[in-house]
Amino acid sequence: MKTIYYGASSLNGFIADENNSLDWLFQFSGEPPDFDSFISKVGAIAMGSTTYQWIYDHQIAHKPGQLEPWPYQAPCWVFTTRELPQIPNAEINFVKGDVKPVHDKMTQAAKGKNIWVMGGGELAGQFYDAKLLNEIVWQLAPLTLKGGAPVFPRTTNPPLKLITVNKAAAPFVELRYEVAYTQHNK
Amino acid sequence: MKTIYYGASSLNGFIADENNSLDWLFQFSGEPPDFDSFISKVGAIAMGSTTYQWIYDHQIAHKPGQLEPWPYQAPCWVFTTRELPQIPNAEINFVKGDVKPVHDKMTQAAKGKNIWVMGGGELAGQFYDAKLLNEIVWQLAPLTLKGGAPVFPRTTNPPLKLITVNKAAAPFVELRYEVAYTQHNK
Repeated sequence: MKTIYYGASSLNGFIADENNSLDWLFQFSGEPPDFDSFISKVGAIAMGSTTYQWIYDHQIAHKPGQLEPWPYQAPCWVFTTRELPQIPNAEINFVKGDVKPVHDKMTQAAKGKNIWVMGGGELAGQFYDAKLLNEIVWQLAPLTLKGGAPVFPRTTNPPLKLITVNKAAAPFVELRYEVAYTQHNK
Repeated sequence: MKTIYYGASSLNGFIADENNSLDWLFQFSGEPPDFDSFISKVGAIAMGSTTYQWIYDHQIAHKPGQLEPWPYQAPCWVFTTRELPQIPNAEINFVKGDVKPVHDKMTQAAKGKNIWVMGGGELAGQFYDAKLLNEIVWQLAPLTLKGGAPVFPRTTNPPLKLITVNKAAAPFVELRYEVAYTQHNK
């Protein structure tokens, strides 16, 4: 069971552009390599309010007068301090505060499967701060952005450990890293 | 003859940390794959004042009372608006203003060899703005930084074209892209 920050990033470290848009990403088609395999091993999902709102606006409520079904099977925890729209027939828990107690609940719910930290970068950073993040898997898109939402606003020290480089979904390059922590808590 | 932005970047798009330091990079040893081959084809080098000052402080004047030799054979153009220390026996031209006329001079001096844009990111961005940049080659280091100097503060539209992925110098991953421009000048 691992906690994995899995997502797409521009080549220079942004997950959304300056207008908080993902249009830069969706100009490309296709899925990450082995996405089906990845998602089949996910037992719980964590995301921030911006990510949730983006999914709601673009994948759930984008057609007038109807809601599309929530696309994920695994139960989901949304970290938010503001009120967000509910989605019927989806196991979505709105939470706030420290990630540690929520991670405990997610671990229980995941029943041995992995926890997917979908984004954003600040939430993934909080899992890192709490030494709960085990892997980082990024699909690097073939473009840079002038600015936007940072994919991971943290300094990783000690460095990450490169596990695999996968270019099966070129022009995307998937980089997989194991997260390392110092042995002694400071 | 190509103009190539070649350098190292953190996994999330920084070339120097928040203290303008490269210590994060020099914790790793080794050279990029095929660096000798790359440098043998370089006929002119462009850099910004921060990059030049960093080389001066850390590679030229870092020992009291003596100067180490300038490490590059190819003539160098340093874009700067401030006075910088000279280095004896090195062909270094201090310039300012638009990159285009300087690029013309560099092209002449390079005699068919490539132009290496060493950094920083803003200078490389100016070469991109002028549609003079042909390739981007980044050694992605196995770590993220919380903040710092951005490797390339530009939105590349159309996207870049992935040429090669090289992990010969793992845990670094070298990504090589061709820069694309719209056919019609806007």
